[in-house]
Amino acid sequence: MTAPRMRVGVVGNEPVGHLMADGLSATGHTVVPLRSLADAAGVELVILAVSTPQLPRVVEQLAPHIRRSQIVWHTVLGKGAQALDDVETRGAVVIAGAPVTGMNTGLVPGMSVSEEPVPERWVVTALDELGETIAGLVVGELGGMVTVRTDAERPVLAAYVNYAWMSARVAAHAHAAMAELGLLEDAPALDTGLVEPSASDIIAGHAVLEDPGMRRAYLDVTRRYAEVTAETGEPGAEELEMWALQEETR
Amino acid sequence: MTAPRMRVGVVGNEPVGHLMADGLSATGHTVVPLRSLADAAGVELVILAVSTPQLPRVVEQLAPHIRRSQIVWHTVLGKGAQALDDVETRGAVVIAGAPVTGMNTGLVPGMSVSEEPVPERWVVTALDELGETIAGLVVGELGGMVTVRTDAERPVLAAYVNYAWMSARVAAHAHAAMAELGLLEDAPALDTGLVEPSASDIIAGHAVLEDPGMRRAYLDVTRRYAEVTAETGEPGAEELEMWALQEETR
Repeated sequence: MTAPRMRVGVVGNEPVGHLMADGLSATGHTVVPLRSLADAAGVELVILAVSTPQLPRVVEQLAPHIRRSQIVWHTVLGKGAQALDDVETRGAVVIAGAPVTGMNTGLVPGMSVSEEPVPERWVVTALDELGETIAGLVVGELGGMVTVRTDAERPVLAAYVNYAWMSARVAAHAHAAMAELGLLEDAPALDTGLVEPSASDIIAGHAVLEDPGMRRAYLDVTRRYAEVTAETGEPGAEELEMWALQEETR
Repeated sequence: MTAPRMRVGVVGNEPVGHLMADGLSATGHTVVPLRSLADAAGVELVILAVSTPQLPRVVEQLAPHIRRSQIVWHTVLGKGAQALDDVETRGAVVIAGAPVTGMNTGLVPGMSVSEEPVPERWVVTALDELGETIAGLVVGELGGMVTVRTDAERPVLAAYVNYAWMSARVAAHAHAAMAELGLLEDAPALDTGLVEPSASDIIAGHAVLEDPGMRRAYLDVTRRYAEVTAETGEPGAEELEMWALQEETR
């Protein structure tokens, strides 16, 4: 027996949305273009691939178009399933599911792909067993594996992922400078299996940290990460520099 | 014809001194214990394996015991051959020679040895061709290779090596936290081929940086590096924490 094939709609432009659409399309599901949020009424699975700050408004605006037994899935690592309460009260099955490893490995300058491919691990939170089961099926079809975490665990977990990502990027930049100085043959492989966070994810991460040392280290590495990524003209660098400046003059 | 075998004396306790003594002993040279700086008169090669702040005083105190054609070699990456002027004026051949890669690769928790062993690269500065030739012979016997740099280049170069080392260590710590959170199978291999700097090397490095962004990044990563290494009780962590605190309240 084949698992049921779904009609899938993606809202938002975060890279994970494309990844899920491509993967689900390749396994026989039908990805339907959504011209507006109203079109979400015509699919079984709605994927909200939006940024951390966009999520609340998108959920609010989507809610009127959602009916019982639709599945609504958001991809923000730092937010849990309760972020989907507005659609859950209309009878939807809600899932917070975000990949933390595997997606971008090797795409960062100065980092190389590890020889063993890193499996994609998704952090999943659902409000009930049905949601967890569906999440497991979908992640399985995408070739990944599920780690279940609670709503409460996700914000700090996301912040630590952001921190690890940025610190690896800063270290890779420093080692590339060693190679430029003629002291290393090549910039060494700094393997990071983590998914690249967006600027808005990074900014959201700082607010949830409570330990003063970690808050400080997070802000410091964000400033340096912004400088380093600004050199290569990456999107989000300027936003992060402005944010770090404001944050440290508070 | 075999290259001439030397009597070698080591002053100081920096790890590179032991490395050189062991390596030269293994290739047929005779390492002589020095009970005092006066004993240095009885060897052909004097290795000053002392910290950055110790070097000027040691050279000054050594000078009266040095005679023409002895070789005096210091191992401080951030200082050039002119740091040995006091012995050079007494006729010694002077060499500043410090390994930058290979020595400690893989010794840091959370980092693993790369499959291809990293060759040991030594940054060498001498005042004349004879000094460079001798440095090349000695480094060759130790299995390393030489990169010649000027006195003027060494301080900033050392600071960048320190910065790269610390940033890799901070990134490795952040990834180890990901593994503890169950998000990575293992802490990934963060290869750094660099030699571990001492706390006093790190402190000396900050003073030579002129770019404000780099000065700031260096101080920030030093503070975090101190926190991270303090967790495992490494020597020097407290000294670095105190220094960073003083430096930022200036």
